[in-house]
Amino acid sequence: MYAGGFCMRQSELFSRTTKNISKDELSINAQLLTRAGYISKLMAGVYSMLPLGLKVLNKVENIIRQEMASLGAQEVLLPALQPREIWDKTGRWDKVDVLYKFKGRGERELALGPTHEEVVTPLIGSFVQSYRDLPIFVYQVQTKFRDESRAKSGLLRGREFRMKDMYSFHSSQGELDEFYAETIKAYVRVFERCGIGDKTYLTYASGGIFSKYSHEFQTVTQYGEDSVYVIPDTKIAINKEIVDDPEVLSELLGNIPKERLLQNEHRAIEVGNIFKLGTRFSSMVGANYVAQDGTSQPIIMGCYGIGSSRLIGTIVECLHDASGIKWPEEIAPFRLHLLSLGRSESEQRIADDVFSKFSRAGIEVLFDDRADLSAGEKFKDSDLIGIPHRAVISSRTISQDRIEYKRRDSDSATLITFEELLKAIL
Amino acid sequence: MYAGGFCMRQSELFSRTTKNISKDELSINAQLLTRAGYISKLMAGVYSMLPLGLKVLNKVENIIRQEMASLGAQEVLLPALQPREIWDKTGRWDKVDVLYKFKGRGERELALGPTHEEVVTPLIGSFVQSYRDLPIFVYQVQTKFRDESRAKSGLLRGREFRMKDMYSFHSSQGELDEFYAETIKAYVRVFERCGIGDKTYLTYASGGIFSKYSHEFQTVTQYGEDSVYVIPDTKIAINKEIVDDPEVLSELLGNIPKERLLQNEHRAIEVGNIFKLGTRFSSMVGANYVAQDGTSQPIIMGCYGIGSSRLIGTIVECLHDASGIKWPEEIAPFRLHLLSLGRSESEQRIADDVFSKFSRAGIEVLFDDRADLSAGEKFKDSDLIGIPHRAVISSRTISQDRIEYKRRDSDSATLITFEELLKAIL
Repeated sequence: MYAGGFCMRQSELFSRTTKNISKDELSINAQLLTRAGYISKLMAGVYSMLPLGLKVLNKVENIIRQEMASLGAQEVLLPALQPREIWDKTGRWDKVDVLYKFKGRGERELALGPTHEEVVTPLIGSFVQSYRDLPIFVYQVQTKFRDESRAKSGLLRGREFRMKDMYSFHSSQGELDEFYAETIKAYVRVFERCGIGDKTYLTYASGGIFSKYSHEFQTVTQYGEDSVYVIPDTKIAINKEIVDDPEVLSELLGNIPKERLLQNEHRAIEVGNIFKLGTRFSSMVGANYVAQDGTSQPIIMGCYGIGSSRLIGTIVECLHDASGIKWPEEIAPFRLHLLSLGRSESEQRIADDVFSKFSRAGIEVLFDDRADLSAGEKFKDSDLIGIPHRAVISSRTISQDRIEYKRRDSDSATLITFEELLKAIL
Repeated sequence: MYAGGFCMRQSELFSRTTKNISKDELSINAQLLTRAGYISKLMAGVYSMLPLGLKVLNKVENIIRQEMASLGAQEVLLPALQPREIWDKTGRWDKVDVLYKFKGRGERELALGPTHEEVVTPLIGSFVQSYRDLPIFVYQVQTKFRDESRAKSGLLRGREFRMKDMYSFHSSQGELDEFYAETIKAYVRVFERCGIGDKTYLTYASGGIFSKYSHEFQTVTQYGEDSVYVIPDTKIAINKEIVDDPEVLSELLGNIPKERLLQNEHRAIEVGNIFKLGTRFSSMVGANYVAQDGTSQPIIMGCYGIGSSRLIGTIVECLHDASGIKWPEEIAPFRLHLLSLGRSESEQRIADDVFSKFSRAGIEVLFDDRADLSAGEKFKDSDLIGIPHRAVISSRTISQDRIEYKRRDSDSATLITFEELLKAIL
């Protein structure tokens, strides 16, 4: 039965859980995602997304797309292959040390895009004439490349990775400020929907010429590479890099003593970064608009990133236990993991029927119909893969005309009817 | 109003139609797609997909996904960044002349994937133990890179381009043959749904060690780079490269005289390519399975490609007129182009209401609500952009309580009611 890709028989899934992972895979996210069959390593910092991993990636990226579209942003897809000229124009050819550089035919110098200001700024500039054409918000969800020196953290630091990058174009600082504030809200919604909202802090970090601060979204977890200080009783943090600046502290801390802040130091992973670029890029590439007073002005810009593959790595770092991953509902590869433990043909037929009924009800089900595995092996795999709801059909449950139901994040299972189960997971 | 990305006000679309295209853009597809605001050139063979272009790309790729999934194929996403070692193993590091090669940190030699046999064969091999694990079919839809010497045909020959590549893994030649035949049918469905089914021919081309022929899908059009000979009264053609082989002709032509075939020479664009790889790759990378008789055997493989961005270029080469593009229904960026020509506020409000009604009816509408353009400019843009159905609301149509309706491929417009229009385009 083909169920539109929403349901799947585990016997047909080519990827398997495995114990066979390389010893240099030190991070929890890479270990669990590899063992559970979501990803496969090709080289340090470069992974294949297997069917389960691609499902999660698509869900995460569609959440991001929805939230960016809700800001009025338009989706594009910009090239990864970029000529040296555009990087010379912004003075970054020799400054961005993670740039993969090489030569194509005719000795043409090329780079792989680690970020896209060099492409998007002249592109938007070519369509903008006057202030009436602004604001414009564009974003893309794309594969990016960075020649990282340390690529040992699984999906947290990839040499090839997935990213959403958005760019905004404005005719006034006030309009940029307003959009920037709206984007913060959209980012909060993304991280909430991805199940790490409670652990993710809007973090003040160092700014640039055009604004005092940039902002990061930092997710607090034991194995983060960054250090942040959470302001007590808030969802706001301060990045270590600016925590010794007295001006910053007086502005952000108010009456709270610095000692209380310093007690709140946490390891964290940066899952998003937003920055007011001002006219840094537009002025260098000549992306101008005619203002209301008739003068030509460089467009005022902001940029907004979320690494979608890194986000998946972060979620796994945060949401797992000793047995495996615990996916949040909205990004789990499937909603329900249905395990058939019966050995007889009639028992298997009953499980098959239940699978069909869930499929028809529009539930995304992974159906463990594998004949050659023990109940113990199936339970182990199920915990490792981490689908939020688990249902078991065995001779015991069949004899009672019930299905055994357990949430991945609960310790106790219950015997309920099909209708009760449907209600529980909808 | 946010309508889930399905509907859009043209006043808010940042891309515009333009007359401003570079003189070295010689191909019809690049000229029309650029002028209409679908793509923007970054360098030869490298294009940005603008919002309209990305919409078409997504639709084409989703058709391909549906048809591959209907074969039971599982979607993955493999890395573009690939280490030299895997190319050395198959002996292709120095043989594939379009390979972009460069060095990363630690002087590590890398390439950008122009195709993925080197990645997918060991990957699938790592999950396969016995014949019982086969067959497996996997595909991806991905950005590929080829350092083409001539990249002057717009989307037809990209240095960075989009492609669906599928790979099949079998334990017998018969099973490969069967899947190969099913894939041909799925490819026919893809090209039919993309509106070029009548112009696309299953074309016999030279094979390799493991099969006499490979097959291409060639779309006949004046500006194609290939030459094919169509067998009279069939949907089958023979590639020029094998047309002088007497054995091929006797096998494929039967009683038809060669002269009749040679009269049927056509220029064509290759939109798909399928190939029985046999054990060419599996034997070199050690991707084996244990057969029923207990022996270890290399997995038998097939590969199946469709360049999705090239397909879009081909469609535009085939389906256009002097005024612009004529998209087939299923891949048009929008279903309906609604033009508001009224100048007064009340007229614009009426057009706005009609737009809302179409949105609520689930129709994908591009609404030309731009205030500063003449009717002539809007009609011109509409023909250029090429949405299949056009509706116009003007003082004339309002006075008669009707909407003017015209199909892009028809010369005559009619005045009909909203309900009639809805029926006509559904």
